Amino acid sequence: MKLLYPTTLNFNPALLAGFPTLTLHPYDAKAPTLPSDLLDATILITWANSAANLSFAASNLRQLRWIQSLAAGPNDVLAAGFDTSLITICTGSGLHDHTVAEHALGLLLTAARRFHEMRDYQLQGKWPGHLGGPQPDREPGTFRTLRDARVLVWGFGNIAKCLTPMLVGLGATVRGVARTAGVRAGVEVFGEDKLAELLPQTDALVMILPGDASTRHALNKERLALLPKHAWLVNVGRGSSVDENALFEALEKEEIGGAALDVFEQEPLPEGDKLYGAKNLVLSPHAAGGRPQGAEELIVDNLRKFLAGQEMRNVV
Amino acid sequence: MKLLYPTTLNFNPALLAGFPTLTLHPYDAKAPTLPSDLLDATILITWANSAANLSFAASNLRQLRWIQSLAAGPNDVLAAGFDTSLITICTGSGLHDHTVAEHALGLLLTAARRFHEMRDYQLQGKWPGHLGGPQPDREPGTFRTLRDARVLVWGFGNIAKCLTPMLVGLGATVRGVARTAGVRAGVEVFGEDKLAELLPQTDALVMILPGDASTRHALNKERLALLPKHAWLVNVGRGSSVDENALFEALEKEEIGGAALDVFEQEPLPEGDKLYGAKNLVLSPHAAGGRPQGAEELIVDNLRKFLAGQEMRNVV
Repeated sequence: MKLLYPTTLNFNPALLAGFPTLTLHPYDAKAPTLPSDLLDATILITWANSAANLSFAASNLRQLRWIQSLAAGPNDVLAAGFDTSLITICTGSGLHDHTVAEHALGLLLTAARRFHEMRDYQLQGKWPGHLGGPQPDREPGTFRTLRDARVLVWGFGNIAKCLTPMLVGLGATVRGVARTAGVRAGVEVFGEDKLAELLPQTDALVMILPGDASTRHALNKERLALLPKHAWLVNVGRGSSVDENALFEALEKEEIGGAALDVFEQEPLPEGDKLYGAKNLVLSPHAAGGRPQGAEELIVDNLRKFLAGQEMRNVV
Repeated sequence: MKLLYPTTLNFNPALLAGFPTLTLHPYDAKAPTLPSDLLDATILITWANSAANLSFAASNLRQLRWIQSLAAGPNDVLAAGFDTSLITICTGSGLHDHTVAEHALGLLLTAARRFHEMRDYQLQGKWPGHLGGPQPDREPGTFRTLRDARVLVWGFGNIAKCLTPMLVGLGATVRGVARTAGVRAGVEVFGEDKLAELLPQTDALVMILPGDASTRHALNKERLALLPKHAWLVNVGRGSSVDENALFEALEKEEIGGAALDVFEQEPLPEGDKLYGAKNLVLSPHAAGGRPQGAEELIVDNLRKFLAGQEMRNVV
């Protein structure tokens, strides 16, 4: 039984040794095709594959039964046209929790501490004196520190659970929004029906929503209008969950404090896009994740389950 | 007995009520003089006073016995020429721990996540694609995340103790350097004689040294040369503790990874100073602290001790 693993991942195949019926084969995930001697593979590990590569695999790996993606979401694999009636697809959910949470925290601190504005001054050779020296402490109607800040995390899965203790450690008050209400990671998580109450009580909104039809433009003009004028948006989920035209308008009219976006409706954001120069917008190039951590453990665990016919983790 | 408190602080005098022999008087800490009816004050609270104001106070407050500064260090008060044989000077050490630690964390994340470089691209309307997408995870010889990063905190007082759990929560390995070795806040703190061993094992050096003669140019050319090529410096202590010429040279020659500085030998950094454009330098305008937190509690505690003739907190 052949398992194909991508050379895009810095990966020691010895970590998957020990399954006697299995042979391990590296492949180039950026190449538009796969070598003919690998087309009878049963298992495909994917990471940062080109669309052409996945499309070729979907058409030519006739004996494929399991895809283990290392990406947080299944979008690229689902778009390639694999026969999901025969093939189990598992995501890399959980492999990016720490990196995405760290990035989200960095963007929140950038917003609160105005590092982007300091940079603009520095590049002009000017001292941004208005951002330094004695300042008011935790003035209501401002977002200048995470201490006592009201952070609302929309999309409360693994990443949110990893981010929460970081925020709490810095003194923030964290609440969550998700499809299912309840208490998770010590945080009160509300249903989306409570957004109209929660958004006006928010200093920073962190969005970690997946990118599917149900989340498209979840943050729209009406919901943006519910945020306080000083509130910041941080999006480390998927770009499609924010209506960028409505956001641009809210930023330009200073109806919200700002937005730090790691994801966009179209990536790369096209040159000339109005968002580059939007007021109080901080751009990050889909850099939050991109470094799976603990991939080998997930693959081995799912591999054993696959061979034993047991239910695997992260099945789409 | 008169206590003078500055209008630079957003302060409710009712919080100091309850001492029958005491009267409370606001004063303008930016004014070059003090009103004549306040010159018999016994106690002076200082915060963001102008040099002229402090100098006037030093010459004219003949009955002054105690100065409670709210600044982390006593530099401005000591420079004004008060008679320290008659006047006890107390600092605001402890009031800035959280804000300075948060800022230091933000600068560390800026460095690791390259937010400054992303900003430079954004301002040019360009997508910084090389900083996003799939990336190597925790490659040796890089500083791209705090997870597993070796952070050395030089100057291990209250601020370091507040910063440490934030760093540990993000997965960093923290060690300290101070005049006195020992274990503090769960961190092994080494004497300065161990710097030659510690600096080469450092991914990020956080300096939180006070600004006095003993710390002048503590980070000099020789010590900079001991840091790995990828290591970042974050300075939230005092600018005088870093030899800026040696740092500039190390940055330009890419002998270290970069420097995020909140403090400078001269502040504001003069327009045209070479540091504005130094390679991989991130400038912050002495913005880490500047917002005393818990000032009222410190003042009340020291006030009671002063009136009772007991030893006060934060005596210089």
